Amino acid sequence: VIVSRLRTTDPGELLAAARGGDRAAVARLLTQVEQGGDGAAAVDQVAFAASGAAHTIGLTGSPGAGKSTLTSVLIGEARHIELRVGVLAVDPSSPFTGGAILGDRVRMSDHALDDGVFIRSMATRGHLGGLAVATPQAARLLDACGFDRVLIETVGVGQVEVEVAGEADTTVVVVNPGWGDSVQANKAGLMEIADLFVINKADRAGVADTRRDLEQMLELSAHTEGSAPGPGAYGWRPPIVATVASTGDGVGELWAELERHRVHLEVTGALGERRAVRLAGEVERVLVARLAERVARLAVGPAFEAARAAVIEHRLDPWTAADQLLDRAFDPAVDLAI
Amino acid sequence: VIVSRLRTTDPGELLAAARGGDRAAVARLLTQVEQGGDGAAAVDQVAFAASGAAHTIGLTGSPGAGKSTLTSVLIGEARHIELRVGVLAVDPSSPFTGGAILGDRVRMSDHALDDGVFIRSMATRGHLGGLAVATPQAARLLDACGFDRVLIETVGVGQVEVEVAGEADTTVVVVNPGWGDSVQANKAGLMEIADLFVINKADRAGVADTRRDLEQMLELSAHTEGSAPGPGAYGWRPPIVATVASTGDGVGELWAELERHRVHLEVTGALGERRAVRLAGEVERVLVARLAERVARLAVGPAFEAARAAVIEHRLDPWTAADQLLDRAFDPAVDLAI
Repeated sequence: VIVSRLRTTDPGELLAAARGGDRAAVARLLTQVEQGGDGAAAVDQVAFAASGAAHTIGLTGSPGAGKSTLTSVLIGEARHIELRVGVLAVDPSSPFTGGAILGDRVRMSDHALDDGVFIRSMATRGHLGGLAVATPQAARLLDACGFDRVLIETVGVGQVEVEVAGEADTTVVVVNPGWGDSVQANKAGLMEIADLFVINKADRAGVADTRRDLEQMLELSAHTEGSAPGPGAYGWRPPIVATVASTGDGVGELWAELERHRVHLEVTGALGERRAVRLAGEVERVLVARLAERVARLAVGPAFEAARAAVIEHRLDPWTAADQLLDRAFDPAVDLAI
Repeated sequence: VIVSRLRTTDPGELLAAARGGDRAAVARLLTQVEQGGDGAAAVDQVAFAASGAAHTIGLTGSPGAGKSTLTSVLIGEARHIELRVGVLAVDPSSPFTGGAILGDRVRMSDHALDDGVFIRSMATRGHLGGLAVATPQAARLLDACGFDRVLIETVGVGQVEVEVAGEADTTVVVVNPGWGDSVQANKAGLMEIADLFVINKADRAGVADTRRDLEQMLELSAHTEGSAPGPGAYGWRPPIVATVASTGDGVGELWAELERHRVHLEVTGALGERRAVRLAGEVERVLVARLAERVARLAVGPAFEAARAAVIEHRLDPWTAADQLLDRAFDPAVDLAI
């Protein structure tokens, strides 16, 4: 483990160090990505051109489904064939303290001394949708740092979290036998993004029922999209793999299916298409994030304070207040740069 | 039940009809709020001035904790003393189809024929953070329509969903005995927003342990904030109520604690302060939403298409692309209105 002695904050120099195996440089770059703003922009400006070689894998599912244990054993599979692995564990952060909770991330300490593995618990302090902007960028950074596989683990409940999980080349939805109760609120969202299903904790009762449920929902969603049941648009029907992550049962098959999906995406050309769609969406999200930063700079002036006071005193509704501020901001006579 | 024969889409006329008991008018106004944009702005412009009398109660917790059943029995308590109740059930919508899933919302059909109860399953199609903008506005609309209590039920996992649950006068966090496993990812966030804890399904083993856990976490969070353990800033220590929502056990006590919190907020002046803080936050969120709408209008022009193509072809990173578009948008020489 090289501990960086670099004093530089230059993203280009940090990236060069990171590509050379300097873990502290990777960590510093990720911190800049998490913090957003101009620092994140500067990192992406160097990382973007160096990215594209890694395959990204999103893992999502209910709290307690065993995603972290699965992630840990998948790291083992990848390391077995000497692939370097980066992991992003996306925690919903407290909206008030910005604190990230660790929890079962500790199981990942199996890989703590392995230079070919880099694990980071992601959290964004601050604005709504921060994770949606920061996570794909963090994945791209790990890609640019030379990791061959980037695993992104998110909890599969929540608008932002499901979206983040879907922003991968391959998305794995992890369920447990008898999953019906715990994810009812979000089944459709999860079905839509799954390239591969894992029934984890398959040593429990109900695996066959769960498999049948999943197959029925796959049929249903194929019908809903107006196409015939069966493989989707690029000829892929999400396989269903049963695992017991804690013992390693089924993990070899899971890894093989992941690799099969990766190759399938490449040979059909779907990989490039999917990445293009994701990048286009990312441009829009970054646009909104950058705009929000300009708004935040706007949100300190006397005009904003006056509008806010008017709303609090019930003299003005929030929409009229926002529109008045925007009209000001877009008025050529007003200097936005501050 | 009056079924509206109004052909009007004028928000003022619809609101007048809604206040007179026209349920179809309420539904139409809520649809406008969900859809966002100028329609939502027009609704808030009339609803805002008419709002302020209702007490809003957020209920949140893990999937399967029994929030919907609790909501249903709380409706019963409120109706018992002839309070009118509006309910917003916030579903995470699929990021791809925009579809909302119903699930256990069906239990609410107990109240389907009661004119004093209005239940709506909220979903936003489209942009990130849409729920965070639409839900407080929908609650305000129900308030303006004359409902005395507005219950907002959200799943307590997910950045947006936890934030939405905290946007109420009183926030109830629902846990189950042995809750540790299922909410580990988000405990801190939930602890921060709770005004009241419910241990639901209290006929199961582990109630005393769960109560002790919650009490310890309350002590801890009081310490973390730098204040002495005990009641918080406005002299309120979140009570912990055990319930079995399916039999009604403990629900009377829960209702009494909700009312005690409401009165406490009013007599200490904390209600006005909290609402002022929430409104100020709302101005910022609406500002970002309105700005995002202007961006969306920008995101169809030739400049955007060129930037998007450059990103997809890896000639430009998303941040530089976004900044170039924004510089254009804020350039006085460019006509933004399109």
